[in-house]
Amino acid sequence: MYTPADSKKGGTMTKIAALALFITTSVFAQNQPPARLVSPEVGADNRVTFRFRDPNAKEVLLTLEGTKPVPMQKDDQGVWALTTDPLQPDFYGYSFTADGVGLIDPYNPLMKPNLLNTQSMVHVPGAGLPWEVGDVPHGKIDHHFYRSGVVGDQRDYYVYTPPAYDPKAKQTYPVLYLLHGFSDDASGWTAVGRANVILDNLIAQGKAQPMIVVMTLGYGAPEIVTAGVGGFSNQELRKRNFDKFTDALLTEVLPQVESSYRVKKDRESRAIAGLSMGGAESLLTGLNHLDQFAWVGAFSSGGISEDFNSQFPTLDSKANSKLRLLWVACGTEDRLIDINRKFREWLKSKDVAHTDIETPGMHTWMVWRRNLADYASLLFHK
Amino acid sequence: MYTPADSKKGGTMTKIAALALFITTSVFAQNQPPARLVSPEVGADNRVTFRFRDPNAKEVLLTLEGTKPVPMQKDDQGVWALTTDPLQPDFYGYSFTADGVGLIDPYNPLMKPNLLNTQSMVHVPGAGLPWEVGDVPHGKIDHHFYRSGVVGDQRDYYVYTPPAYDPKAKQTYPVLYLLHGFSDDASGWTAVGRANVILDNLIAQGKAQPMIVVMTLGYGAPEIVTAGVGGFSNQELRKRNFDKFTDALLTEVLPQVESSYRVKKDRESRAIAGLSMGGAESLLTGLNHLDQFAWVGAFSSGGISEDFNSQFPTLDSKANSKLRLLWVACGTEDRLIDINRKFREWLKSKDVAHTDIETPGMHTWMVWRRNLADYASLLFHK
Repeated sequence: MYTPADSKKGGTMTKIAALALFITTSVFAQNQPPARLVSPEVGADNRVTFRFRDPNAKEVLLTLEGTKPVPMQKDDQGVWALTTDPLQPDFYGYSFTADGVGLIDPYNPLMKPNLLNTQSMVHVPGAGLPWEVGDVPHGKIDHHFYRSGVVGDQRDYYVYTPPAYDPKAKQTYPVLYLLHGFSDDASGWTAVGRANVILDNLIAQGKAQPMIVVMTLGYGAPEIVTAGVGGFSNQELRKRNFDKFTDALLTEVLPQVESSYRVKKDRESRAIAGLSMGGAESLLTGLNHLDQFAWVGAFSSGGISEDFNSQFPTLDSKANSKLRLLWVACGTEDRLIDINRKFREWLKSKDVAHTDIETPGMHTWMVWRRNLADYASLLFHK
Repeated sequence: MYTPADSKKGGTMTKIAALALFITTSVFAQNQPPARLVSPEVGADNRVTFRFRDPNAKEVLLTLEGTKPVPMQKDDQGVWALTTDPLQPDFYGYSFTADGVGLIDPYNPLMKPNLLNTQSMVHVPGAGLPWEVGDVPHGKIDHHFYRSGVVGDQRDYYVYTPPAYDPKAKQTYPVLYLLHGFSDDASGWTAVGRANVILDNLIAQGKAQPMIVVMTLGYGAPEIVTAGVGGFSNQELRKRNFDKFTDALLTEVLPQVESSYRVKKDRESRAIAGLSMGGAESLLTGLNHLDQFAWVGAFSSGGISEDFNSQFPTLDSKANSKLRLLWVACGTEDRLIDINRKFREWLKSKDVAHTDIETPGMHTWMVWRRNLADYASLLFHK
């Protein structure tokens, strides 16, 4: 048995069981647990029924990604339920709000991990969509761990390698650095964004070049997220977060990737893109380091202020000879559409060539999975 | 925009927002959400305070891994709380049970993934423990995806490679196949068992040989877990699950690993071990394939019936010349201690050499993390 070196309590493992002895055993604990509910239940018509048992709650709401909270209806067994209209095939995050508290669905193992607001996820399947696992060769995802000298913590990043990738072969690959949003962690683009599935499918269909995708932790100042939801609205903290992120990416993650994978190391073989906070990071890092990146993408970017001149001090039409693609996308129902339109107006005023993308949709993963599929298809062509 | 090939509904992404329009917006949805609670809160004395807001529940229980459920106390703000006795440093799964329904802690992003019963997890830190991330070189974890012909599904496995591993170098490594328990998925040994952290530390301290660890999905018949908790008590289903698991491991995963990693391929360089259902799988696969494995471990194994002769028809003292280690461990407070003692008695009756390990503890990850640290230290010595 292991005992902590600094233990002064002489505790043993069995001590943790002591809890149960000090408090009278509850009546509930001795009863049978209630039967498992089926939730979510996806019907043949793509209507989804959500169920949640909470006999004493006064109100239970369903929040489905991309919609406002809607009340569920309680039956005489204390089960709250709601059936949606037919949903377009996709993956949707959702949560129940019982008397004001957001909760996951206890009978659904499919999760949408998040540092501030873990949710459940429901899959409405649809044939041939880029994020559906196909009977095609699969790449793999490598999970790396390292100590960051820039930030001063232990952190991680993920690397997708395409199906044919062979570390012993001579072939080298271009690299997309793909960045998550505020409150996600480094697993966001695979666990929720399904980036590996999307790339597998696009590569199998000949729609995307085989590439390596690096998904790293997007916090240069991690206190921005441990400080809670308000952290991102602190402008000074946000700037430190962006600056240190760029530093960690360019001086730690990128060199590690380039020394341990068979990658092309010229700027025309490096892309950077991300969603929301990661979109801002892609613009700030990419457009201020055109010596290192030729392909830049921003999906619903958020966190850049309107003073674009001070954030991109050297950007002007000379960038056009270096930028192979500057792709700026946002959903028209996203609250960030205004700042994205202003940013594109500013790019235009500076004669910086870019691709304007406006799609239906809000600030959701349904938009970003499609963004990735579209953007990845455009990368690394000669 | 992508539209499903088979769509007859002509739906657009914006249609999902229609939900919100049909139902009167709730009063709750327009109010401010309640302030975030701090939960769990680990005190300097290793007492942990858990908090959960549920103003209308009649009873809320805390279930901490290794203890019976205990009632929490409600304050006048509707917040239920409980502070434990000092806990030994470790990671503990826990859940709240509100009026009979098990729930995660909505303010804690640290999760214990499980296909039947997702829980939250709390970390009580302790210096020098094998599962604490140390300032040592870190290995990486590769996540593989493939279509199983044996089972007929898309599935995954994880491969830990040690810090010095270089696919381009000549050095080869021994392999431990490490199996999860019933209701876990392939991520269990890393996400909860912290196998990569344990191996990093043991290797850095010279306590374990550098090795590759393969953690594959343990279901030969996945319906055993999708059928719910009762699936594992169906003996016929359990046997099919075990048989097909062995088949998928030996004919699919093992050959893939041996063709894509620099591994030693002799039986003395292959170990198999697992917890609970995975312990049974290690015994059934390992002891019935001594031509392929020389090191076998079972941690709190469950699922083998008492008719040992029929499950291990060829096992006798001749195995002693092949088995480098047969390590059979169980916690003394585990409900499976009886069957494990009977199994060891049977091994003794057959003159099969083995190591008996009884530790304090129940059927918990606190036992299995320690088992792994002890077992891995014994492997692959000359």
